[in-house]
Amino acid sequence: MTRGRTPYTLGVAVIGAGRMGADHVRRLDEVVGGARVSAVVDIDGERAEAVAGRVRGCVAHTDPAAAMDAGDVDAVLVASPGPAHEEALLAALERDLPVLCEKPLTPDAAGALRVLEAETRLGHRRIQVGFMRRYDSEYQQLKALLDAGELGRTLMLHCAHRNVSTPPGFTAPMMINDSVVHEIDAARWLLDEEIAAVRVLRPTPSSAAPQGLSDPQLVLLETTGGAVVDVEVFVNCGFGYEVRCEAVGERGAARIGAAHGMSVSAGGRRGAEIAQDFLTRFRDAYDREVRAWVDATRHGRTTGPSAWDGYAAAAVCEAAVRAQATGDRTPVALGERPALYG
Amino acid sequence: MTRGRTPYTLGVAVIGAGRMGADHVRRLDEVVGGARVSAVVDIDGERAEAVAGRVRGCVAHTDPAAAMDAGDVDAVLVASPGPAHEEALLAALERDLPVLCEKPLTPDAAGALRVLEAETRLGHRRIQVGFMRRYDSEYQQLKALLDAGELGRTLMLHCAHRNVSTPPGFTAPMMINDSVVHEIDAARWLLDEEIAAVRVLRPTPSSAAPQGLSDPQLVLLETTGGAVVDVEVFVNCGFGYEVRCEAVGERGAARIGAAHGMSVSAGGRRGAEIAQDFLTRFRDAYDREVRAWVDATRHGRTTGPSAWDGYAAAAVCEAAVRAQATGDRTPVALGERPALYG
Amino acid sequence: MTRGRTPYTLGVAVIGAGRMGADHVRRLDEVVGGARVSAVVDIDGERAEAVAGRVRGCVAHTDPAAAMDAGDVDAVLVASPGPAHEEALLAALERDLPVLCEKPLTPDAAGALRVLEAETRLGHRRIQVGFMRRYDSEYQQLKALLDAGELGRTLMLHCAHRNVSTPPGFTAPMMINDSVVHEIDAARWLLDEEIAAVRVLRPTPSSAAPQGLSDPQLVLLETTGGAVVDVEVFVNCGFGYEVRCEAVGERGAARIGAAHGMSVSAGGRRGAEIAQDFLTRFRDAYDREVRAWVDATRHGRTTGPSAWDGYAAAAVCEAAVRAQATGDRTPVALGERPALYG
Amino acid sequence: MTRGRTPYTLGVAVIGAGRMGADHVRRLDEVVGGARVSAVVDIDGERAEAVAGRVRGCVAHTDPAAAMDAGDVDAVLVASPGPAHEEALLAALERDLPVLCEKPLTPDAAGALRVLEAETRLGHRRIQVGFMRRYDSEYQQLKALLDAGELGRTLMLHCAHRNVSTPPGFTAPMMINDSVVHEIDAARWLLDEEIAAVRVLRPTPSSAAPQGLSDPQLVLLETTGGAVVDVEVFVNCGFGYEVRCEAVGERGAARIGAAHGMSVSAGGRRGAEIAQDFLTRFRDAYDREVRAWVDATRHGRTTGPSAWDGYAAAAVCEAAVRAQATGDRTPVALGERPALYG
Repeated sequence: MTRGRTPYTLGVAVIGAGRMGADHVRRLDEVVGGARVSAVVDIDGERAEAVAGRVRGCVAHTDPAAAMDAGDVDAVLVASPGPAHEEALLAALERDLPVLCEKPLTPDAAGALRVLEAETRLGHRRIQVGFMRRYDSEYQQLKALLDAGELGRTLMLHCAHRNVSTPPGFTAPMMINDSVVHEIDAARWLLDEEIAAVRVLRPTPSSAAPQGLSDPQLVLLETTGGAVVDVEVFVNCGFGYEVRCEAVGERGAARIGAAHGMSVSAGGRRGAEIAQDFLTRFRDAYDREVRAWVDATRHGRTTGPSAWDGYAAAAVCEAAVRAQATGDRTPVALGERPALYG
Repeated sequence: MTRGRTPYTLGVAVIGAGRMGADHVRRLDEVVGGARVSAVVDIDGERAEAVAGRVRGCVAHTDPAAAMDAGDVDAVLVASPGPAHEEALLAALERDLPVLCEKPLTPDAAGALRVLEAETRLGHRRIQVGFMRRYDSEYQQLKALLDAGELGRTLMLHCAHRNVSTPPGFTAPMMINDSVVHEIDAARWLLDEEIAAVRVLRPTPSSAAPQGLSDPQLVLLETTGGAVVDVEVFVNCGFGYEVRCEAVGERGAARIGAAHGMSVSAGGRRGAEIAQDFLTRFRDAYDREVRAWVDATRHGRTTGPSAWDGYAAAAVCEAAVRAQATGDRTPVALGERPALYG
Repeated sequence: MTRGRTPYTLGVAVIGAGRMGADHVRRLDEVVGGARVSAVVDIDGERAEAVAGRVRGCVAHTDPAAAMDAGDVDAVLVASPGPAHEEALLAALERDLPVLCEKPLTPDAAGALRVLEAETRLGHRRIQVGFMRRYDSEYQQLKALLDAGELGRTLMLHCAHRNVSTPPGFTAPMMINDSVVHEIDAARWLLDEEIAAVRVLRPTPSSAAPQGLSDPQLVLLETTGGAVVDVEVFVNCGFGYEVRCEAVGERGAARIGAAHGMSVSAGGRRGAEIAQDFLTRFRDAYDREVRAWVDATRHGRTTGPSAWDGYAAAAVCEAAVRAQATGDRTPVALGERPALYG
Repeated sequence: MTRGRTPYTLGVAVIGAGRMGADHVRRLDEVVGGARVSAVVDIDGERAEAVAGRVRGCVAHTDPAAAMDAGDVDAVLVASPGPAHEEALLAALERDLPVLCEKPLTPDAAGALRVLEAETRLGHRRIQVGFMRRYDSEYQQLKALLDAGELGRTLMLHCAHRNVSTPPGFTAPMMINDSVVHEIDAARWLLDEEIAAVRVLRPTPSSAAPQGLSDPQLVLLETTGGAVVDVEVFVNCGFGYEVRCEAVGERGAARIGAAHGMSVSAGGRRGAEIAQDFLTRFRDAYDREVRAWVDATRHGRTTGPSAWDGYAAAAVCEAAVRAQATGDRTPVALGERPALYG
């Protein structure tokens, strides 16, 4: 971190100026200390200019490599569409630049494997993948409880992932790749085991589901240690954004995602509002994630979900998408874990 | 109900003087109005005498048929072990006596079918099966909500059935026949559909499970209407008796079994006690069930879970026990539903 | 209990055939075992006939004394309007008949004192006062917790008593005598102390309150042991019937009345229905109260809230009604407690 | 904000290097974007050096005025002990510097009035007082709900403020000045009314209270609009840090502070952990408060709780401390509100 004129404030190039990218620019500028947005990159130059223009001294680019070569760029935040990730990640690794890469690492396991191999050749971790649930305070409480061992070994996870509705063009594979991928990473992280096989059950679709979308679904994961994870994914549930997880251990169960905030008694009912979207529900988690990345990077470290985590998630998603189509129990093919990610 | 000397107080013969039978004798004697225990039957004569002796004017028998023929017996409550049910039920049907039969109707689908056929020949319902969850106030709230249609069609049920621990000799089939049978009946009742197929997933057992018992398990039911039901059954969970059910509909979800009673803040924690056994959790449901049976019977009606419900539950249990052993999706073979149970 | 032709089934004369009386007749007839309604009394003879006519063998009366002298009457349930209680209670005590008397014992402390003295002269308890909260399962949990001493001495109670709305003619003193009287008894029972003084604070009334009714109010009780009890009484709250109590002890706090039953997620909110009236909220408590009275009476005992409890509640209510008018701290004048109620 | 070499990063002088001051230094350095700690001031020079030494380019001072005169200081955060506030605030106002002042504004109403007058003479707001509850997300939800008017006018607030235990030397006035002051400000803010009078009830103290400390207490506030606020303050409750508030309106009630985070079922109980101190419970509120101050200040604005709010809180606290001693209803003497704080 000795490049550039502001050694103690991390200069970040944000790749991608869409909804997520613009939100990260705002976060780095206003919410998180210790960093400044030096560059914004988008293939749509006007969009890049528009977002860069909000930050004093920030330069717009259309080429990620050019941005990474700028003198005041110390680190890269990748928030472009998934298919563009691999190229940006390899460019950052070539320059030995720290990266926070929004999930997915890449849309496919093969691409993820190439990134993984590039980082392995580099010999040290530079990539943190944006599985932001690991930074949510309730997930962190749950992880701490399981790691402390008070409930014994974890035997099952019961999960639900519900969205109010889907945008046009949302497909069944997107239910896996965009939604369940979070539960896949959370399960791997909470249990500290890999996913060995996947099944998908498809109830008769809700009449609120778009034509042709089998919504909801029940995704069943088996881990290498023999735990079972069930995930209700219901992306047109109509009533709110709900993410819940219950861990069942040998001596107890723990639940997160159930009850938050203010309770109102009125009109014959008592209860609370349900968040309507993930940016509301997980806003603090995004803030904490980026803060943790900035902090670690300023201290020369790379922590958090690794490229291996990104690769494993991609491999499980591929198996789950096949399982959606066939209805069969589908094993997950996973390469050997390099020592770097031990 | 015009036999005997007390036409307006129902004279009941209780078959079986074990834990459940004795509890029903106490209930009929002290808790529920409009009935009296006229006879107690047990193959162990001493046990029958001991329980009968607690009620003024109650006679002990060792032969169910003899008890049913007594002049002051208007109705029969069967609480003997499952294998003895079929004979008692057929004897009651022969005499056209109303019966409340503790679950299971019979331990096997074939026996249940014979009972069903006998009642069908009789031409009117006389049997109520003791699926007491239908009389629990929370299940009744849930049923009313689903029937009202406010949540749209029900797509999934997420259930958990947890016991503190099992007595010696408890087997994997008993997890189905004694525990999950309640969820099987509840699912059929709540959804108003039959179960079409069963799968069982078996996580690595808890170290607290007895040697050889694969505990917990995840039972997956598919209904004829395409709904999916998952049931965690965990009979050595160690921490309490928990029965939960969440119904997921097209426009909302509803949950029962989560929060009850007093909440205590002490020692750094805030929360509630968990019931330790089913007689505590479902005491009011048992009272309501028997009261409903006495009321209906005094008015010459038979209501509640029918012999068909008992038969269907037995058929699903048989499929589930096979599914436990094979791990396969196992279809449920169900005969045609007689018009009597339309 | 050796009078009459049915020595083991308690013959009860119900005094008062209004809403509460008719409900108790139904309860004794259908819900509670071990009793039958032998007589129904009301000064309105037609009303008495109408209610008595629903029960086989039950006789209608207009004179309480005549009913009590009937051969098949073993016990009396007083559910007439408060001003008629004293005469009925004294008549029952003259005949040494067990009584369950709906609250209030009498509307005034002076009348209550005369009843108390009559029972004291009789030399044994015959009266149970209908403070049914003592039979609510949550209150019983709270009482058991406090008596067990785990939370140390109880320092404060925070209570709320809310009704949807009031009938025409509801007055400020009725907020004390009909509503807060329950918290007064509950506080005395939970703390095992008498109330020493009362204050009433009156916020600017809700615009939903009837003209002239200062609603809500905050009633503050001080006990002889120095505990402080605050009671929000809000009888036109508009949204439901809520009764809550939190006990704050030296080492923890416990709360009842907060969360019940089914929780529904729909329309962007998650929560539960609130009961709309006391018969819904406390139905089980009424059943348990009457059952406990029948059981005790059949065994020759008198238990539950005593005439002393009825007298003390009346004395506190009188002080509270004065405190409503003056705004001052008002001491409670209480006679000495006879040994019979030790 | 045009002084100094870093016009877009706010240079802050932190006055006071104790627990709160050091925490704010860490927050400005690591957590909040857009600011840097330019100076740390403490009368204990070694302590100032120790804290300043953690931040690159930060200078230690023992004299607040000298720090404020430094070229890279754009704003002041006052976190010194209360008695030192007035001098620091007046010095900042002389230099027209924006200030975030930890509560209390000053320990006494007279001092607060002098600060208020100085700012009034200056003609524009420069002071934000650190009532951080206004930045807690649940309080903000409650405020938004009340302001939206859905519950009608607010009639009562029921509050509880509990600490695990007190440090040595904690006095009864500190229960008002350090603890209840937060409820005083929250009540004024939520209701948008001033406090007109105060009463304090003192139950028999907990045996866990230090010798001589009457703990818990019940503080009763009346507002100028006729609302009533009750506050349980219990600073040696032993079991956790709990802050709760229920607003009772004409058409409904809303509650905050009840349920958070993960729920664990184990050992026969189901529940959640209670936070043990205010830095855990309100950590996010502190972060949001300081972020809001930095943001507003960078844009040349002063928002949040004003010097008038600080003065009014001091006046209510003075009345409450007198009410503690006398037990009487004690009116609050409040000057007229300058137009600047309209």
